[in-house]
Amino acid sequence: MAAPLANNHISVDCVVLGFDGESLNVLLSKRSGCDSNGKVFMDYKLPGSLIYQDEDLDDAASRVLKELTGVSDVTLTQFKAFGSKDRTSNLRDVHWLEKEQAKVKRIVTIAYFSLVKLDKTLEKTVNTEVAEWQRLNQLGRLAFDHNLIIAEALKAIRREADNNRALIFNLLPKKFTASQFRMLMEIIYDKQLDVRNFHKKISQLSYIIPLDERQQGVAHRAARYYRFDKKAYSGSR
Amino acid sequence: MAAPLANNHISVDCVVLGFDGESLNVLLSKRSGCDSNGKVFMDYKLPGSLIYQDEDLDDAASRVLKELTGVSDVTLTQFKAFGSKDRTSNLRDVHWLEKEQAKVKRIVTIAYFSLVKLDKTLEKTVNTEVAEWQRLNQLGRLAFDHNLIIAEALKAIRREADNNRALIFNLLPKKFTASQFRMLMEIIYDKQLDVRNFHKKISQLSYIIPLDERQQGVAHRAARYYRFDKKAYSGSR
Repeated sequence: MAAPLANNHISVDCVVLGFDGESLNVLLSKRSGCDSNGKVFMDYKLPGSLIYQDEDLDDAASRVLKELTGVSDVTLTQFKAFGSKDRTSNLRDVHWLEKEQAKVKRIVTIAYFSLVKLDKTLEKTVNTEVAEWQRLNQLGRLAFDHNLIIAEALKAIRREADNNRALIFNLLPKKFTASQFRMLMEIIYDKQLDVRNFHKKISQLSYIIPLDERQQGVAHRAARYYRFDKKAYSGSR
Repeated sequence: MAAPLANNHISVDCVVLGFDGESLNVLLSKRSGCDSNGKVFMDYKLPGSLIYQDEDLDDAASRVLKELTGVSDVTLTQFKAFGSKDRTSNLRDVHWLEKEQAKVKRIVTIAYFSLVKLDKTLEKTVNTEVAEWQRLNQLGRLAFDHNLIIAEALKAIRREADNNRALIFNLLPKKFTASQFRMLMEIIYDKQLDVRNFHKKISQLSYIIPLDERQQGVAHRAARYYRFDKKAYSGSR
């Protein structure tokens, strides 16, 4: 590593969530190491690392995300610090830490979330040798307490979206169908929504603008596209 | 100190806000030390300290608050981590840290807030030798970045109260007048509210129950008391 690690007790972790029009995905960093029996393993963790001396938390989060995944220029929002003494107690994690980073007993991590459109432009920036997107509903057991951190990120996003609906539209493509929007809301709020009621609701929202354009090349009936009008939304609040 | 300081890089700080019926106050810890010229000074800081090994963040916050102020049994909510590299750069703070705690260059602090009724029962628990309440609108310059931390606590409280109005009533006495409620809202949201509109709004809220009781022994016209009905509030959402 390039700069001295002043704080071998403080890390940042990034929960980058991307919607691909069908499912919500999280950007993970590949990890390999040896377990206590000397057996090689490969698993996944959130992109995260210890912070450098003279590095602010927000700067550290951006740097680590870029270094570990290739992704940059996304808005990272700090949402919670995780400092349970048990979070680094799994033996596999202990061995990996000792080899890769430093001999530390305890790490407090400051967690960030980011909501992005998972489109081709973004996909190109991901370094697939070391990072990959995984569906949120198909995650295995991640390193440390990273499953918990993702669950808490979703809670924080819900709380924030209740106040500021615009947050959700960071995940949607510029042009989206009503069912894409509905599926995303169903995932984030973890509940089924009535299709007809949802369409009705959309038609009443001044900031969701129906476009003349429809889906192309789909087997089923081509759905209309909508766009989110940020200005109208700010005005409606 | 009793237990080993595993992490001389991580601290917790508590922003305990109490409403006394007139103004919003913050619980501060008295600090004395020597500045770089050897001159003794006395100033104020948030109750906060480095965390112990094997101590969860939430536990550390409760412990530190009790040790430094005497106050216990309050709900502490984690709201933000502060880790700017400049937050411990003031010379006065550097000297105080070296003498009182440890030789550290950089401390990331995890901040908590708590909203309490500043009544006689609570006041009795405060150890006034080392701690005191100060009016929020009359604060001087506090140690480290503690003025910033208090400002950010207020922002977090506003965000949270937008979703959950019940939070605000943690600050009010069980029986409160309409003007006490209004004054508190004015302080928290930092804006003047129209008296008549506010009264009208209150009368429309199912969870604010007018009582038959009125203020006693006041020079001006005795105001009616109200109470907050938690059940009615949960039902109204």
